[in-house]
Amino acid sequence: MDDKSANTARLIALDWGTSSLRAWLLADAGEVIDARTARRGIMQVEDGDFAAVYRELIGDWISVHGDLPALACGMIGSRGGWAEAAYVHCPAALAGLADRLLKIDADPVPLHVVPGVMQAPGGGALPDVMRGEETQVLGALAAAAELAERGLLVLPGTHSKWVHIADRRLTGFTTYMTGELFAVLRKHSILGKPAGDREAPTDTAAFELGVDTARETGEAGIAAALFSTRSRMLAGEITAEATPDYLSGLLIGDELRSATVGLDQMPPLRLIGDEALCARYRRAFARFDVEDVAEIPDAARLGLWRIAEAAGLVAV
Amino acid sequence: MDDKSANTARLIALDWGTSSLRAWLLADAGEVIDARTARRGIMQVEDGDFAAVYRELIGDWISVHGDLPALACGMIGSRGGWAEAAYVHCPAALAGLADRLLKIDADPVPLHVVPGVMQAPGGGALPDVMRGEETQVLGALAAAAELAERGLLVLPGTHSKWVHIADRRLTGFTTYMTGELFAVLRKHSILGKPAGDREAPTDTAAFELGVDTARETGEAGIAAALFSTRSRMLAGEITAEATPDYLSGLLIGDELRSATVGLDQMPPLRLIGDEALCARYRRAFARFDVEDVAEIPDAARLGLWRIAEAAGLVAV
Repeated sequence: MDDKSANTARLIALDWGTSSLRAWLLADAGEVIDARTARRGIMQVEDGDFAAVYRELIGDWISVHGDLPALACGMIGSRGGWAEAAYVHCPAALAGLADRLLKIDADPVPLHVVPGVMQAPGGGALPDVMRGEETQVLGALAAAAELAERGLLVLPGTHSKWVHIADRRLTGFTTYMTGELFAVLRKHSILGKPAGDREAPTDTAAFELGVDTARETGEAGIAAALFSTRSRMLAGEITAEATPDYLSGLLIGDELRSATVGLDQMPPLRLIGDEALCARYRRAFARFDVEDVAEIPDAARLGLWRIAEAAGLVAV
Repeated sequence: MDDKSANTARLIALDWGTSSLRAWLLADAGEVIDARTARRGIMQVEDGDFAAVYRELIGDWISVHGDLPALACGMIGSRGGWAEAAYVHCPAALAGLADRLLKIDADPVPLHVVPGVMQAPGGGALPDVMRGEETQVLGALAAAAELAERGLLVLPGTHSKWVHIADRRLTGFTTYMTGELFAVLRKHSILGKPAGDREAPTDTAAFELGVDTARETGEAGIAAALFSTRSRMLAGEITAEATPDYLSGLLIGDELRSATVGLDQMPPLRLIGDEALCARYRRAFARFDVEDVAEIPDAARLGLWRIAEAAGLVAV
């Protein structure tokens, strides 16, 4: 499958999160020789037998290519994962992540795990944690070096992260449970009932009305606007089918509003994440007159390669 | 059962909501002769056979006391209820509710239904709706006449309402889905997992930490603070058992913060609702240095009696 003369395998890189597991076989300069995805996030691994999943996933790569270093980021290093990799504390020098890898003695080759980052409370900040995003941020800065001195990385998802960068350090971050809030409200609250189980194409107008409503509600926040998902429908302003997109707009709009409170000026900004979701966020940013929000693809893989280089797992 | 010489039955009053149905047999000045509660909210009535529930609930009262007028408030007058009582529009003269009753031709006696109130969008307000709370507000003002010129009534619950009164009119209101948000997050989100299904006595310190956190998070709002339910636990600041009370404090605290944005001065304030929940809100208000938050009991019954008087269903 791979052309060994051009692409000698150098690293097995894993992004092992809560609900999915992605793995890459990488060559000399981090090029992808092979890639795999498994629905084996840490919540889907029976009896916590991560060793078996790992062996099964990468065994044949080792059989074909011989022993290779392996490096993982994400929830696999959490208390509920394979083994706990102690948090690095924020503000965190991104270059320092490579010095704090946890080594798991695994078969067929040891697995190194990137630590998460913890923000201790204080100075107006709430405590917060990330695992996996620190690697994506590092990868994104490899692709967008202009943000390393001052930048903001937005990682939309179940638990969105807004990560501030200054002087190549991760200086602070906030988690927004936007994706999970949407899912539980859609499935389990009165707001989800009118649209039933139907999946409809995105209603852009309803989504943008939600974003605008969150923006205009301002300081009162999502608490004061959430019920409008229902009352706008009762008042005939949106259809039952449009309520999920309106709700999505409300929640993402409030995330943008909240995350930009107190920012005199928007720092250089990039998105990291699922393409369709990034497009949705880009549409929301446009309603806030923020237009320069390019997406950085492959951030986890890029970050894993950089950390492997810095840790000496692969030759620089 | 009742002493007819002292207490001639005059009215059957019903508070018929989403999840419960309360009924009173009232005498000359609105005194309670008999009271009943049934788990027959409109969501619990099979096949929408409200007529059967109604007949069964009040049939013997009519048998004993002869024909009486009957008046109901609440979701029974919604589209998903027995028959839809058209909304009165906000700002609404509370005295005018009595002129807009819907009469349902029912057995054994007709049932009159109080209309809900709709707030049309505009002037910075989102559309909003209430059914049942308008009657409680009217009843509360009968008990606390000093608020009729200017006041704020807070009705905590699944969908809390904050209702502004000026010049005996309901001038505006906002719905907060605080109770439902708590329930779905507790049961279906990652925030509810650490405490499992255990019911623990209230952890007042954790609740107050949640309220304080919401207050201090300020304009950034609940979106920026919600995940701290988890991260404070991971950081060892609260126990797993305390997370539900912390979450409750966060949500109620953000409701208070949001609802008081832009208020130069707190209007005279009263609580209406479940005693334990009102106590929880009173504790939260105290963290905002608002101390005068007495509770008005029996507001629905008082309101139904007043509306029956104004509509001529009972002699004044």
